[in-house]
Amino acid sequence: MHAITDTPQVILGPRVRKSPFFDATRRYGCQAYTIYNHMYMPLYYESPEADYWRLINDVTLWDVACERQVEITGPDAYHFARLLTPRNLSRCAVGQGKCVPLTDAAGGMLNDPVLLRLGENHFWLSLADLDIRLWAQGIAFNAGMDVTITEPDVSPLAVQGPMADALIRDLFGSKAAELRYFWFYETQLNGIPLVVARSGWSKQGGFELYLRDGRYGDELWEQVVAAGAPYNIAPAAPSVIERIESGLLSYGADMTVDNNPFEIGLGKYVDVEQEIDFVGKAALRRIKVEGIKQKLVGVEIHGESLPGNEHPWPVERNGGPSGKVTSAIYSPRLKKNIALAMLPIASTDLGTQLTVETPLGLAAAVVAPQPFVLPRT
Amino acid sequence: MHAITDTPQVILGPRVRKSPFFDATRRYGCQAYTIYNHMYMPLYYESPEADYWRLINDVTLWDVACERQVEITGPDAYHFARLLTPRNLSRCAVGQGKCVPLTDAAGGMLNDPVLLRLGENHFWLSLADLDIRLWAQGIAFNAGMDVTITEPDVSPLAVQGPMADALIRDLFGSKAAELRYFWFYETQLNGIPLVVARSGWSKQGGFELYLRDGRYGDELWEQVVAAGAPYNIAPAAPSVIERIESGLLSYGADMTVDNNPFEIGLGKYVDVEQEIDFVGKAALRRIKVEGIKQKLVGVEIHGESLPGNEHPWPVERNGGPSGKVTSAIYSPRLKKNIALAMLPIASTDLGTQLTVETPLGLAAAVVAPQPFVLPRT
Repeated sequence: MHAITDTPQVILGPRVRKSPFFDATRRYGCQAYTIYNHMYMPLYYESPEADYWRLINDVTLWDVACERQVEITGPDAYHFARLLTPRNLSRCAVGQGKCVPLTDAAGGMLNDPVLLRLGENHFWLSLADLDIRLWAQGIAFNAGMDVTITEPDVSPLAVQGPMADALIRDLFGSKAAELRYFWFYETQLNGIPLVVARSGWSKQGGFELYLRDGRYGDELWEQVVAAGAPYNIAPAAPSVIERIESGLLSYGADMTVDNNPFEIGLGKYVDVEQEIDFVGKAALRRIKVEGIKQKLVGVEIHGESLPGNEHPWPVERNGGPSGKVTSAIYSPRLKKNIALAMLPIASTDLGTQLTVETPLGLAAAVVAPQPFVLPRT
Repeated sequence: MHAITDTPQVILGPRVRKSPFFDATRRYGCQAYTIYNHMYMPLYYESPEADYWRLINDVTLWDVACERQVEITGPDAYHFARLLTPRNLSRCAVGQGKCVPLTDAAGGMLNDPVLLRLGENHFWLSLADLDIRLWAQGIAFNAGMDVTITEPDVSPLAVQGPMADALIRDLFGSKAAELRYFWFYETQLNGIPLVVARSGWSKQGGFELYLRDGRYGDELWEQVVAAGAPYNIAPAAPSVIERIESGLLSYGADMTVDNNPFEIGLGKYVDVEQEIDFVGKAALRRIKVEGIKQKLVGVEIHGESLPGNEHPWPVERNGGPSGKVTSAIYSPRLKKNIALAMLPIASTDLGTQLTVETPLGLAAAVVAPQPFVLPRT
């Protein structure tokens, strides 16, 4: 038996895809990667906390090429896109993005992508970690619709933080800086083809640059870094601290196929009254009528500062089991441990007292308002 | 800009699933993990080469729970399973496993799982890294068949190496030891429910124990370790060295959706004459008639010993580009660099002289017979 390794490595190999920005992430000192949609994804550079402060105070550059796109085109693309989501897309304009839950036939969450409508019959789904290309192609196989479903050469690079607006204005001018939330347009930067969107997986403000030709990954990265120098730009990655503070959910941790949209706060995007016979409609209608049995809520965990959770932490209430903490972290801004937890409805009232099994022992906890920190406006 | 990290880490978090054997792999000193089917998968313990020699000489225990199962049941399960693969399953017996290519409608490879037939209408697909559950559920959605498709609580633990037969005989008796290749049966070990199959991703002989209740992961691991002590058992993982020596292919590296079964040597499993209208039939029939333009072959790369490839290495012939090396490694047994390469048909004759762009510079190479080492019989 060998010694236990506190810091297991990832060996870089040919089975896992590399982002167009991968060489840049190595050059800029990325110290840890995960794998997401079969692609290496940076986790941190300086340290998770140092990167977090740069996101809070300055502007950061994230390789999120692993948010792979599923592209839907063809004469029936609009009608097919509507089959895939319970969200009513009848008022989604060209140039607009929307957060769309995707569910299976039982109403279980398969993904929570941003849908971008590039044309009347041209869509991208910008995905969390699951092979939605296969799902969409499978659904299309017998659907009798004329659609083409592919993974295009499109790789998002996120620019996030309070100085993102100024930086994007310098790079692209006022049209980009004046985009409304989730809206986008097609443009280029010194010949590099892009979609620029006001979006991103933080609530610190920012944009995503959807690179449309992977050969320009390094060039795009360096141009943004150069333009960001006056704003103290830093390489970083989606921050576990900031996203829990802001109540952003992570597919695989805070929701899986075992959860329906109502349990995770996406019920507002489920329209069972629309005429479209979308996948999961009957199940979601039934769940809406019957009500949910559990719900994702915010929880504060008292006591000393805790490490991020490696796996769900069991929750107890009145001495019995009562759900689980799905994501937990110590917030340096709030100076307390904050968490998301999937709890039985009876335990979800604000102020409910709980006990959480943490790696440091049992800790008292309480259901708290969400988000822990309001979005920067 | 920070220093470049030669050994990037993986941070363990709640988004990625843990195998029932995960705690054991940590306790036994696993030093590196990858992520496979949304689950941590061990890469090595002592060192990749030390682990390899234990596989060649002794017997090794692998956590391959990440080979997730898709279970197909219901009155139409047999007919539905036949839709998913070009392989003719008409003679697949209950208790038998078969390697089955899965392709999309264009004939592109989606997976190369082992299919296990547990009953007339009860199948598992033991998967490489892609969400085939979604693919199968999508295909089933409009197929008008009565099937249920789930991911069951089933986690393979592989026992591989020349002493695997003796160890399995000690644990399970002669019924297990006398299994033919890819056959299996349902049994238990001191109350732990299992399927025991003669299979595994090496050619050193061995078995896979499909654990059917994740709560017993640690117990199963320790019982196998205890029984393996007389045979010098070691924890290990699928070996990049051994699998290239043996010509075993890795989905994502040696094949992707851009390859058809004929290009990667699985043409023998494509039966376009069967009556079943399986997914991809028209495309595969056309490819079979027209012939393939490229093929995966073995290549020896001359010169000093090379590191494993991080990404495909470009290949040249007669001064022009000619395909790519998909997987490469130095073989300590053969004392040479061996590789798999996807090359234009004109470059695939045995003895064809090539040049490969390696991290150590241009190297001469030659198309070589496959496999590099014959299976242990």
